Amino acid sequence: MSVVVVGSVAYDGVETPHGRVDRMLGGACTYISLAASYFAKTKIVAVVGDDFAKEDEKLLADHAIDLEGLERVPGKTFFWAGVYSDDMNDRTTLRTDLNVFADFKPKLPASYRESPYLVLGNIQPALQRSVREQMNGLRLAGGDTMNYWIKDYRAELLDTIRQWDFLLINDAEARMLSGEYNLKRAAAKIFEMGPQTLVIKRGEYGAILFRPDGHFIVPGYLLEEVFDPTGAGDCFAAGLAFALGAGLEGLQALDFAAQCGAGALAGAGVHAERVPLP
Amino acid sequence: MSVVVVGSVAYDGVETPHGRVDRMLGGACTYISLAASYFAKTKIVAVVGDDFAKEDEKLLADHAIDLEGLERVPGKTFFWAGVYSDDMNDRTTLRTDLNVFADFKPKLPASYRESPYLVLGNIQPALQRSVREQMNGLRLAGGDTMNYWIKDYRAELLDTIRQWDFLLINDAEARMLSGEYNLKRAAAKIFEMGPQTLVIKRGEYGAILFRPDGHFIVPGYLLEEVFDPTGAGDCFAAGLAFALGAGLEGLQALDFAAQCGAGALAGAGVHAERVPLP
Repeated sequence: MSVVVVGSVAYDGVETPHGRVDRMLGGACTYISLAASYFAKTKIVAVVGDDFAKEDEKLLADHAIDLEGLERVPGKTFFWAGVYSDDMNDRTTLRTDLNVFADFKPKLPASYRESPYLVLGNIQPALQRSVREQMNGLRLAGGDTMNYWIKDYRAELLDTIRQWDFLLINDAEARMLSGEYNLKRAAAKIFEMGPQTLVIKRGEYGAILFRPDGHFIVPGYLLEEVFDPTGAGDCFAAGLAFALGAGLEGLQALDFAAQCGAGALAGAGVHAERVPLP
Repeated sequence: MSVVVVGSVAYDGVETPHGRVDRMLGGACTYISLAASYFAKTKIVAVVGDDFAKEDEKLLADHAIDLEGLERVPGKTFFWAGVYSDDMNDRTTLRTDLNVFADFKPKLPASYRESPYLVLGNIQPALQRSVREQMNGLRLAGGDTMNYWIKDYRAELLDTIRQWDFLLINDAEARMLSGEYNLKRAAAKIFEMGPQTLVIKRGEYGAILFRPDGHFIVPGYLLEEVFDPTGAGDCFAAGLAFALGAGLEGLQALDFAAQCGAGALAGAGVHAERVPLP
């Protein structure tokens, strides 16, 4: 089983009630691929600048992640900084520097094109679509998006998700995308846009998986320590794609994904102890 | 199986995003006993004023609720008014008129004293304790409280819940009572106060049942229409007491309670269509 992951490989500045880290390896592609590396041959598509540290590249390589699709170009790596609320259920973005991501045109290595699975981290819908179009014989494709694309790039986003099997967003995003407050009605509208599996991420409260014929809900795992939620949704995405790809039933797939997400909460950044081991 | 229910029988003024009702039958005792009446012989202890309407008394009597412990005194019935937030996960109290409840000294009819089950709605801890002390041979007792009693009547509340088997509160109340933010650690502190079953109500997200040897979580039922959440926690309490009393396992008890709670959401007030039929 091999999976292609596209998204940001980034440096993050993160502040939680437990502490602050000014700069550490992060990004959706990083988290998704680290989690996915535990159960699938993982191939990433992303771009980094010439400031990307050797040890960060080594961390990815040590997880046997295929880096052929990781472009290195002059300039700075994508940077994101944010601060979490006291209960860590909300976060505020303090800074987003696209840097080398601004001009990124993903070109898939030939060795990637036949992979059956594709997970699209939250980046520009046009980039997500371009990767999807370069692949042949996909059995399952899906991913994440956010309020910014839903609001200001709606047509482009709708063009993109039309070809996805699953869409993975939070409740506020589902409401914004569908124009429906009630989540059952929001799901019905989103099925008309393409994806026939909609997963609503609810943070500490778990997740809901909607399909046209019904829905499943799992509560989130209750942990004694939650250090840094960054990347939890991405690790959840990796687990979900694996579980759906492996043919697990809805409830089992969702629970497996929730375990992967919970595995990301215990430490800051991508330190070994926070990589999920479901 | 017979259950004694104590708490407020009240008139409520409720505003939700779906509409407003200036005055309707409400109160914790009302909701708990209506829900409990579907599966147990239910006996209530409460006080109403001389404004208490014949048709409201008839509604309770039609559910075969034993009204021997319902005192009628000169004055006005307890009145509460509140407004719900747009997502109905929060509410603000606009008015609380204790009225006849201010001087209420519950006296249990002899026919109530041997009931094996007691559910204590959210009222003054001293009243809850007084009812508990008038009962003999209880097999299960527990109930609800709120931030006001936790903050300003702490010693009295601790004296009261020491004798309870279960405590049913929301996450903010558990944090306030225990002084611990993390819910697992909050539960450990609360076990030391007496109750060996702690149920955390999480509104639309469901509930967690903690016992010293572990915990269970259920998600809330996802409904297409949520009209008025008033009383949902009380109907949940009735279902929980019945399920624990009937010897259901933790997860089954919690799920049964969640069904009873969900049954209270569909209409305004105590209209027939919102009484739970799990």
